[in-house]
Amino acid sequence: MSAAAETLDGWYALHNFRSMDWASWKQVSTEERTAAVIEFLAFIEELNVAHEEKTGSHAFYSILGQKADFMLMTLRETMDELQQLETQFNKLAIAEYTIPTYSYVSVVELSNYLAGESNEDPYQNPHVRSRLYPELPRSQYVCFYPMDKRRDGDDNWYMLSMEDRKSMMRSHGMIGRGYAGKVKQIISGSIGFDDYEWGVTLFADDVLQFKKLIYEMRFDEVSARFAEFGSFFVGTLLDADKTSEFLKV
Amino acid sequence: MSAAAETLDGWYALHNFRSMDWASWKQVSTEERTAAVIEFLAFIEELNVAHEEKTGSHAFYSILGQKADFMLMTLRETMDELQQLETQFNKLAIAEYTIPTYSYVSVVELSNYLAGESNEDPYQNPHVRSRLYPELPRSQYVCFYPMDKRRDGDDNWYMLSMEDRKSMMRSHGMIGRGYAGKVKQIISGSIGFDDYEWGVTLFADDVLQFKKLIYEMRFDEVSARFAEFGSFFVGTLLDADKTSEFLKV
Amino acid sequence: MSAAAETLDGWYALHNFRSMDWASWKQVSTEERTAAVIEFLAFIEELNVAHEEKTGSHAFYSILGQKADFMLMTLRETMDELQQLETQFNKLAIAEYTIPTYSYVSVVELSNYLAGESNEDPYQNPHVRSRLYPELPRSQYVCFYPMDKRRDGDDNWYMLSMEDRKSMMRSHGMIGRGYAGKVKQIISGSIGFDDYEWGVTLFADDVLQFKKLIYEMRFDEVSARFAEFGSFFVGTLLDADKTSEFLKV
Amino acid sequence: MSAAAETLDGWYALHNFRSMDWASWKQVSTEERTAAVIEFLAFIEELNVAHEEKTGSHAFYSILGQKADFMLMTLRETMDELQQLETQFNKLAIAEYTIPTYSYVSVVELSNYLAGESNEDPYQNPHVRSRLYPELPRSQYVCFYPMDKRRDGDDNWYMLSMEDRKSMMRSHGMIGRGYAGKVKQIISGSIGFDDYEWGVTLFADDVLQFKKLIYEMRFDEVSARFAEFGSFFVGTLLDADKTSEFLKV
Amino acid sequence: MSAAAETLDGWYALHNFRSMDWASWKQVSTEERTAAVIEFLAFIEELNVAHEEKTGSHAFYSILGQKADFMLMTLRETMDELQQLETQFNKLAIAEYTIPTYSYVSVVELSNYLAGESNEDPYQNPHVRSRLYPELPRSQYVCFYPMDKRRDGDDNWYMLSMEDRKSMMRSHGMIGRGYAGKVKQIISGSIGFDDYEWGVTLFADDVLQFKKLIYEMRFDEVSARFAEFGSFFVGTLLDADKTSEFLKV
Repeated sequence: MSAAAETLDGWYALHNFRSMDWASWKQVSTEERTAAVIEFLAFIEELNVAHEEKTGSHAFYSILGQKADFMLMTLRETMDELQQLETQFNKLAIAEYTIPTYSYVSVVELSNYLAGESNEDPYQNPHVRSRLYPELPRSQYVCFYPMDKRRDGDDNWYMLSMEDRKSMMRSHGMIGRGYAGKVKQIISGSIGFDDYEWGVTLFADDVLQFKKLIYEMRFDEVSARFAEFGSFFVGTLLDADKTSEFLKV
Repeated sequence: MSAAAETLDGWYALHNFRSMDWASWKQVSTEERTAAVIEFLAFIEELNVAHEEKTGSHAFYSILGQKADFMLMTLRETMDELQQLETQFNKLAIAEYTIPTYSYVSVVELSNYLAGESNEDPYQNPHVRSRLYPELPRSQYVCFYPMDKRRDGDDNWYMLSMEDRKSMMRSHGMIGRGYAGKVKQIISGSIGFDDYEWGVTLFADDVLQFKKLIYEMRFDEVSARFAEFGSFFVGTLLDADKTSEFLKV
Repeated sequence: MSAAAETLDGWYALHNFRSMDWASWKQVSTEERTAAVIEFLAFIEELNVAHEEKTGSHAFYSILGQKADFMLMTLRETMDELQQLETQFNKLAIAEYTIPTYSYVSVVELSNYLAGESNEDPYQNPHVRSRLYPELPRSQYVCFYPMDKRRDGDDNWYMLSMEDRKSMMRSHGMIGRGYAGKVKQIISGSIGFDDYEWGVTLFADDVLQFKKLIYEMRFDEVSARFAEFGSFFVGTLLDADKTSEFLKV
Repeated sequence: MSAAAETLDGWYALHNFRSMDWASWKQVSTEERTAAVIEFLAFIEELNVAHEEKTGSHAFYSILGQKADFMLMTLRETMDELQQLETQFNKLAIAEYTIPTYSYVSVVELSNYLAGESNEDPYQNPHVRSRLYPELPRSQYVCFYPMDKRRDGDDNWYMLSMEDRKSMMRSHGMIGRGYAGKVKQIISGSIGFDDYEWGVTLFADDVLQFKKLIYEMRFDEVSARFAEFGSFFVGTLLDADKTSEFLKV
Repeated sequence: MSAAAETLDGWYALHNFRSMDWASWKQVSTEERTAAVIEFLAFIEELNVAHEEKTGSHAFYSILGQKADFMLMTLRETMDELQQLETQFNKLAIAEYTIPTYSYVSVVELSNYLAGESNEDPYQNPHVRSRLYPELPRSQYVCFYPMDKRRDGDDNWYMLSMEDRKSMMRSHGMIGRGYAGKVKQIISGSIGFDDYEWGVTLFADDVLQFKKLIYEMRFDEVSARFAEFGSFFVGTLLDADKTSEFLKV
């Protein structure tokens, strides 16, 4: 058996994708609709408070195409808090006019492939902490996709030696570094939590950088031979004003 | 033909995953809703009686993400009893406000890969009995997933010799043993009963242990080369209080 | 080209899987519901007459889990009769409260892999006739699954010589013979009729025998290397009393 | 690059599979239902006129099992006419009580694998014309399935030489010829039009001949190694009387 | 790692596929229906203005078969504009009578496989600009499909050298050039934006040219060994008159 990778694990993550049931939403009286929007904005404001107090973080984006109309990503210290937030959302008036389309359960993760040697407790390292408990940026664009490492005939990631995996992950990391300042990347592990092994959430102010980064990586052996991808979601930031605008009918 | 594995088989298992139809549930009158909750809690209480009398066992958890809102897992001596419980649930008032999302039919199983030699009837061995007819714990978290052993080109589990399979299963078991006291594992066989060959149900008070255990196992040859996984479900315990809270709108 | 297998073909088969729409069923007036049950039991009684007169046969079972609530399997001399029975069922009042979930179209089949040499017309052989036009038993449990023979790289059943296929099918048949008296097996061919190549219907009074039989066979080369399985359905017998009980709300 | 196959192309084809929404259909008043049936039969009669005038052809069959309740296959000189027929059907009263379940878009095709050498314009050859612009028979049974030629590792049809492909197609054609008079076969190409590369529509008065033909072909290398199949649909002829009977509730 | 391909990127693209809910559409009063059509045609007219002013482009086609009833393809300078157009469409009265069936998010792309050497800024080259910011033609027929380059065992596009990829893409381009004047092709990249790597949109006045082009290409190594295709959609032009006709019930 090859040496297993080890991880540092931070906040738990729930990505909640929803479509609007526009036909029903339009049939509601203006009064009820206004109340539902106010209630929803108050819910988002609660999330903002946690975000400010750094007891969690979240991101709210509209999604392009028919896979969803919006995505609410929440990060919290425990899975129980995520469960409560999910149920709280489900009981909002606006939720009655949405259709669940996809979700993803994971935990923000750093692997030891790229870690240096150290005697320190990494959970006390401020740089590590800022990555495990990240303040999600308010970039103009978001991209999310889940992925696996392939286990297929000669292309079996989990049968490679730790050395080979480390070397490939480092080369992979070098490509990512070339996008520093352009793309912020959150990796969250989902083995045992959801159907793929990882979720990848990217933030950028230039949406084209998502494509450039992922395309360049695809020629790297670790993606070319070993990556299996799920669905890709891309969308634009919904602040309070844009949310109101988006929900106006 | 390689020697077939043999199994000891215990209680039959039904995992029943459901989502709430929150919009309809909210439209019901408070009176009807209260009656439905009381009826449902009485149903759960009947399950508790069987659990106490050790004529079966069950587990009731909320599920995170859109795959389901809750899971009711029931264990019984016969498949007929499971069928009755399923139909009984379907006829509850609350069931009208739920949407079936996934289910799994299996039987608690121990394989002979890890068994020692013995002249005793294993079904009389108290240790074996406690594993075949398990009292499901009330841990804070649950994880469920179905799986197959792969039959693909050179990675064909069922073409391996019994010796090779035994040796790999022992090494696999060693990893599991490292999580003793942290994760309780129920393996149930479903060949002929459902679409995968096994269901795996894990219980833990630290949800991160699910990920650590399954990730470590993935580097083991028996998972790396031979495991095919279905969907993963993760959730948190719903006792009577939390159930009432969960259903309150 | 390897020699093609030849078959003897008997009664046509339709497996009709349905779920109950319990919420709607409960909303119907007791009067209407009673009338619908009586009409349905009369339909089943018509099937019983054909079964008694040996102009066909059928089996009616509840199905465990969410894949379906019940399965009605009908055997008839022509596909036209099956079509009429299907349409007749669709027009019953009770059908309005059911949801189609799966179906399978096939014809009871015996292959020449296991046949001895003979100058007789096999269709006149009483033993052969009893297998091609089987009286379906009223065993306590049923199991159904569709399957293909694999055509994948080196594991291509249809590229093997007739001799190799015969030898593997004989060894396979030996396992089945070990379950004589415990499991009754109906093989029906569906090439050109449905999405898999065969349907397998098993009957037993001990549900565990399904798992034992199929698990043992999985280690046999013909299953290990060449079988591709669809969904598995398992359920319990619904006689007139149990049907009434099942439909009572 | 291997020499590409060339095709002769005839009438465009739309296979339209629908299920009846029996519950809604029964709720309509007898008057409305009668009007809807009359309107539908008049639509079929229009198709009959085109069939008689040889400006197109069509086939109307009930389908066994839950994949569909009926199939309407239409052949026309242009895709625009098919589009008009589809929209015309969608606007019929009866269409409101049907559920779309599957469709297939293709064009009747002859490949040059089996063509002899000739200086003539094949589109002027009466034998070729009768195959490109076929008068669909009113056989008792129909079978439809879409298929691809495999491109997988060593089993890649499109990497074979023209000579190898021709030789395999000829041997394949020989099997088909053995069923002359029993099964009529229409091959339609769908590359660029639908998800598989070809649609195959078979007509016969003995439904068993579909199974015999396709099973025999499966042992032929071109099917065994290179065919990938979609769903199979089988059904029985619906003439005007049977259509009225079928729609009567 | 092989050298990554580089791309020039133009307008962002949203392909929006919808089916009509004809039953609901017919139930609306003539007045409301007329208003909805007028509102929709005004929306299309807005798109026409952008098309005329070359600040974007669009194409509106009916789709044959059950995959969709129509496709609206929009091209814009930013993803935000596409998002606005999508939301604007969703809020139209007519949208309430449509069912989302498929969508695709991408950006018009030119790769450097076919590019010559140059010191110029390609974004200033008028020929390049006309391809990155294309005026979509009003051809009679459209064809759309998404595709991937395969990464499977020995058939792994992303493990090939740049030289091999370039040589194969050139041979591929030669086939395309043979259809100049017959088929107009728009390639849009979707890595990071949608589930496949590219979308291909073809326009022609002879629908058969789609099939001829794609079939010929399939024998080319780059398609034969390395192409994985999604669903294919084909349809006919909907101008204002045909749109009104199409929506008339």
